[in-house]
Amino acid sequence: MVKTVGKAPEVGIVMGSKSDLPLVKKVKEVFDYFGVTWEITVASAHRTPDDAARYAAGARARGVKVLAAAAGLSAALPGVVAAHTSLPVIGIPVNAGSLGGMDALLSVAQMPPGVPVASMGIDGAKNAALFAVRILALARDDLTEKLEEWNKKEACAVRAAREDLDGLPLPPEDAFR
Amino acid sequence: MVKTVGKAPEVGIVMGSKSDLPLVKKVKEVFDYFGVTWEITVASAHRTPDDAARYAAGARARGVKVLAAAAGLSAALPGVVAAHTSLPVIGIPVNAGSLGGMDALLSVAQMPPGVPVASMGIDGAKNAALFAVRILALARDDLTEKLEEWNKKEACAVRAAREDLDGLPLPPEDAFR
Amino acid sequence: MVKTVGKAPEVGIVMGSKSDLPLVKKVKEVFDYFGVTWEITVASAHRTPDDAARYAAGARARGVKVLAAAAGLSAALPGVVAAHTSLPVIGIPVNAGSLGGMDALLSVAQMPPGVPVASMGIDGAKNAALFAVRILALARDDLTEKLEEWNKKEACAVRAAREDLDGLPLPPEDAFR
Amino acid sequence: MVKTVGKAPEVGIVMGSKSDLPLVKKVKEVFDYFGVTWEITVASAHRTPDDAARYAAGARARGVKVLAAAAGLSAALPGVVAAHTSLPVIGIPVNAGSLGGMDALLSVAQMPPGVPVASMGIDGAKNAALFAVRILALARDDLTEKLEEWNKKEACAVRAAREDLDGLPLPPEDAFR
Amino acid sequence: MVKTVGKAPEVGIVMGSKSDLPLVKKVKEVFDYFGVTWEITVASAHRTPDDAARYAAGARARGVKVLAAAAGLSAALPGVVAAHTSLPVIGIPVNAGSLGGMDALLSVAQMPPGVPVASMGIDGAKNAALFAVRILALARDDLTEKLEEWNKKEACAVRAAREDLDGLPLPPEDAFR
Amino acid sequence: MVKTVGKAPEVGIVMGSKSDLPLVKKVKEVFDYFGVTWEITVASAHRTPDDAARYAAGARARGVKVLAAAAGLSAALPGVVAAHTSLPVIGIPVNAGSLGGMDALLSVAQMPPGVPVASMGIDGAKNAALFAVRILALARDDLTEKLEEWNKKEACAVRAAREDLDGLPLPPEDAFR
Amino acid sequence: MVKTVGKAPEVGIVMGSKSDLPLVKKVKEVFDYFGVTWEITVASAHRTPDDAARYAAGARARGVKVLAAAAGLSAALPGVVAAHTSLPVIGIPVNAGSLGGMDALLSVAQMPPGVPVASMGIDGAKNAALFAVRILALARDDLTEKLEEWNKKEACAVRAAREDLDGLPLPPEDAFR
Amino acid sequence: MVKTVGKAPEVGIVMGSKSDLPLVKKVKEVFDYFGVTWEITVASAHRTPDDAARYAAGARARGVKVLAAAAGLSAALPGVVAAHTSLPVIGIPVNAGSLGGMDALLSVAQMPPGVPVASMGIDGAKNAALFAVRILALARDDLTEKLEEWNKKEACAVRAAREDLDGLPLPPEDAFR
Repeated sequence: MVKTVGKAPEVGIVMGSKSDLPLVKKVKEVFDYFGVTWEITVASAHRTPDDAARYAAGARARGVKVLAAAAGLSAALPGVVAAHTSLPVIGIPVNAGSLGGMDALLSVAQMPPGVPVASMGIDGAKNAALFAVRILALARDDLTEKLEEWNKKEACAVRAAREDLDGLPLPPEDAFR
Repeated sequence: MVKTVGKAPEVGIVMGSKSDLPLVKKVKEVFDYFGVTWEITVASAHRTPDDAARYAAGARARGVKVLAAAAGLSAALPGVVAAHTSLPVIGIPVNAGSLGGMDALLSVAQMPPGVPVASMGIDGAKNAALFAVRILALARDDLTEKLEEWNKKEACAVRAAREDLDGLPLPPEDAFR
Repeated sequence: MVKTVGKAPEVGIVMGSKSDLPLVKKVKEVFDYFGVTWEITVASAHRTPDDAARYAAGARARGVKVLAAAAGLSAALPGVVAAHTSLPVIGIPVNAGSLGGMDALLSVAQMPPGVPVASMGIDGAKNAALFAVRILALARDDLTEKLEEWNKKEACAVRAAREDLDGLPLPPEDAFR
Repeated sequence: MVKTVGKAPEVGIVMGSKSDLPLVKKVKEVFDYFGVTWEITVASAHRTPDDAARYAAGARARGVKVLAAAAGLSAALPGVVAAHTSLPVIGIPVNAGSLGGMDALLSVAQMPPGVPVASMGIDGAKNAALFAVRILALARDDLTEKLEEWNKKEACAVRAAREDLDGLPLPPEDAFR
Repeated sequence: MVKTVGKAPEVGIVMGSKSDLPLVKKVKEVFDYFGVTWEITVASAHRTPDDAARYAAGARARGVKVLAAAAGLSAALPGVVAAHTSLPVIGIPVNAGSLGGMDALLSVAQMPPGVPVASMGIDGAKNAALFAVRILALARDDLTEKLEEWNKKEACAVRAAREDLDGLPLPPEDAFR
Repeated sequence: MVKTVGKAPEVGIVMGSKSDLPLVKKVKEVFDYFGVTWEITVASAHRTPDDAARYAAGARARGVKVLAAAAGLSAALPGVVAAHTSLPVIGIPVNAGSLGGMDALLSVAQMPPGVPVASMGIDGAKNAALFAVRILALARDDLTEKLEEWNKKEACAVRAAREDLDGLPLPPEDAFR
Repeated sequence: MVKTVGKAPEVGIVMGSKSDLPLVKKVKEVFDYFGVTWEITVASAHRTPDDAARYAAGARARGVKVLAAAAGLSAALPGVVAAHTSLPVIGIPVNAGSLGGMDALLSVAQMPPGVPVASMGIDGAKNAALFAVRILALARDDLTEKLEEWNKKEACAVRAAREDLDGLPLPPEDAFR
Repeated sequence: MVKTVGKAPEVGIVMGSKSDLPLVKKVKEVFDYFGVTWEITVASAHRTPDDAARYAAGARARGVKVLAAAAGLSAALPGVVAAHTSLPVIGIPVNAGSLGGMDALLSVAQMPPGVPVASMGIDGAKNAALFAVRILALARDDLTEKLEEWNKKEACAVRAAREDLDGLPLPPEDAFR
């Protein structure tokens, strides 16, 4: 078991820029639901590279278990974070320029062999948080239960959407059996 | 802690097609190095959807901790696997058509919010294995040590490459201090 | 002939998310014109995979003849539906992210050999409905007649558009003979 | 019911160029398996536009039920065929230039509203044939049975592939239950 | 010399849809400046294929010298026009969907060998008109003179723009000598 | 009429690099067939910009009627040529790097308003020559006749291809009437 | 040392069009900060090619040390400038059409071997100015100092952003040590 | 003037991987021609991030004037180098995966504002070296002379290529005056 120093959170999130802030609200929603502790900061692979490196390098010793990094354009941050830790690192490519985030997606996903980053989809902050929960759930049975509960809620929301199709012809209930 | 039934491996890998086999050799190399137990199978999101779903759905109960899925073209397999488990699922987009794997990368990475898949780069089987190890290392200190050892070896290999630059002008050793 | 159980509609449509609803209004317009019976529901390849699978698997027995599925991003739904039925399945890639729907188009169109999906263009709900009608018309002569009528109407609309070019120099009528 | 004049085949295939021939061998394999009658010809949307138009326009009267068209580059053929018939038309974008077939895929899939083409994936001739069979099966119960048989064979082939993974650690059989 | 029947214009323009109308205003501006006669119509490669074909086929006999065709999405119109005439045909790919016009550009530009279309840039109606003028100028010296005048005006506009850079440091006039 | 000085050819072709030579063989084939006079040279927009500019600027006075320019990568040559002449300029984007010619296509086609270039498809040298012939045919009736003859030959070649489909089921001859 | 004639600025910037003006405000901000002298003008590779060529060709003799050029679409300007000088030339691809600037990026970056252009990112005017400063700093120690000061300011801005994350859980200060 | 410690070369090149070695041979050819001193090493942004950072950070003090970095895939190396120095940094995107280098180009070029990298084209090692020479020439008149000599040689090579067009019709020599 990793030795925790003090009361560090389970997930550490780094944004490459303050402009990535809106995405992170989705993260909060997920972590609040699951009761996962987390922290968030801003550090740039290019403007504060040492901060990013040191944050990543020190995270395990502080007890952080999963790191996530969000960046746009030439999104080097997730790779830089992954290069300085052996913790699992989740990358969130951000749609920040005029290419719809394709630049960030390729920068985050196309990591060379040896240093893995787990890329989410473009602006995929919610999935980043859920993926972190799936990792943490390996050691916390309560999270597994909550994940199943969450998945059921998601399924219910999909099913509830059917009821909003007023005036449209719906299949009978037993069409799903 | 998840209750293991019998002696299931730590990582379960699903390939969408036998043609993905070459990629998986990279996985073996990594898992052998780390002493991680694993299993591998073939199941198609489209041709054996129930196999894929049941394999994913049963993995946790058998004690599997991390799932990975490799597929090309319209690579639905990682998403299908993720939809049937709450384990962390790693997706490996495979370069299997005429678009260099861009179709598979977008199919794997651009998951809708709610069901996360951790996309590696195109043909990124080696990183998929390493990412699985990073997850498993959260509960196995020996893996953390080996990861650091591995990273050192990778760094050594990079440094050794400098010595192959015979006849080319090299920087002095203290250029890296 | 397929045996119909009860009074099932000719076309069954599945949307991956309630947000795909606007597209489906185009479908209604077409089916109303042709007097084709249809039903519509919401089922997600990732959030309610079993619903999607069961809906697809049961459709033929209920008497449905053509299935259509609309989804954005990593649009697995059409492929999942096609994997669970031997009915013809039409896929509608939806422009739902920041890549203009290119991700959905590749996910829908680039199906691996063995399980066909008929991809429409991005947000191509109207053509999906028309394609369903073309299939149904193979067994309903009235639809063939209406299709020819529809095509004539479309042609008339194009020709009528010429009359809106007031003030612009038009070719003589016999330019089209 | 469409009135058949003479003994026309169920499926008519048009290739835009003789160089598309290799793809069509896949078609033959499928149609032979299913006992579907077919015919094949070469007609170019640009070099023999009248042939393409007349072939499409006359197909229904001859008793053809489904048309398919394969073309590369600026692949106009499927759309031209669809414009001259009310039969269902399947488009096969061919990888014929230096862009991996992306040009053909967009040309085939992105049809404007009003004239539907069912796009397969790039070089997707096998799926085109299978999709034609799915359409024909609506009126031929034997084809439905054969489709289910075909799908079972495909599933068996996927499962058989597992046995080729000699020396690799396999999941137990009950992992798929 | 081509024999003119009646008083046909020098340039014939076909739009695939009324929605392409805004682009054509640019054309008018150019042709008015140059005193080039023109006509414009709407004909769809898919909805009124015979109109498009006949318009193209008859244009030379009427005395039209250059044809232009504008279309979006799977923009088959320019190729269809070119297939029915031996006049030079200019293609204008229109930005009409969610892909920024990339689909139309590839559909227009990537013509197979044998039937040439001169592709302009996306929404390049102004350049289409100017290119038509360049062709017509081969037989009309007044147009050549006007083209040189036009080019000088364009150059003047660029130079005039320098004067709008108030408050910014400008290079001395002799920087351009 | 443009005054010709001496015996200049009708078409002038500029290649950006000697490596573009293979493409130009296709040009020769077309011009030989049509009896069109032409000349070819190498001039680079970047390495011999003045040569390119002067060649373009002087072409009209020498009696050249149509210019064509072939270039790969950041293919500026067609635009540079067009900027120095009022003759019609055809651009041939060459597949010369690792992007399949997409870079050259965008560089050639996406000309800003004011200076038109007629882009062919990637490696579209044959169509460039045919397009030049279509322009020249406006003033040479023999070329119009030959173009029609050429088009018939192309159509015959397509039809002849049908006869090579031995062993495959062919449609009856009257399928094209 | 280059001999300066008169009091020329250190950096010369050329915009391809007045519409590129907004980008240049970013340039001013940077040069004002660093006390770098500069000049700016408008010259088009296509509409005033001689101005562009002469401006580039004369810049060194006037004492200019670095040139930058901004252009959109088929952005030939940076290459044209680079072709007429041996000074270092920075290219700024501008997002000016419907492709998000991808056309300009490829046009600027994909220069053929022999004539280098230093491409910035799309709309990267600020980085263009900073890169010019980095070059000038090789001969001006005050600029090196200011660059380090600038980089510190940028780093401070990133760190200050952390303080705006009120209500969010922040890592302890020593997380960056 | 930067104070040089010892006898450091003018240009320092970092490759992200030994597999980038072929590209660097082009660099040697250029630097040998110009008599520019250089050094080359291997350091990875992800596998030896500290080496890369320290090499970059120490380069100025050792007297290096220009840095270049070559990397493929998610090519973070140029940005990482630029983040640790105020020297000008040239980035060389390498075609190392299945996407033709598009991933590397976007990763290198799309740097966020604040930290500039001068991107060359894909595999543009020769231009990287020439760009470095252009920078160094600002302080070395001999390099400026050699650059002009080099450019003349390049121009001569282009002109010599004309003579290889035996059997093809060439323009008269005065076509370039």
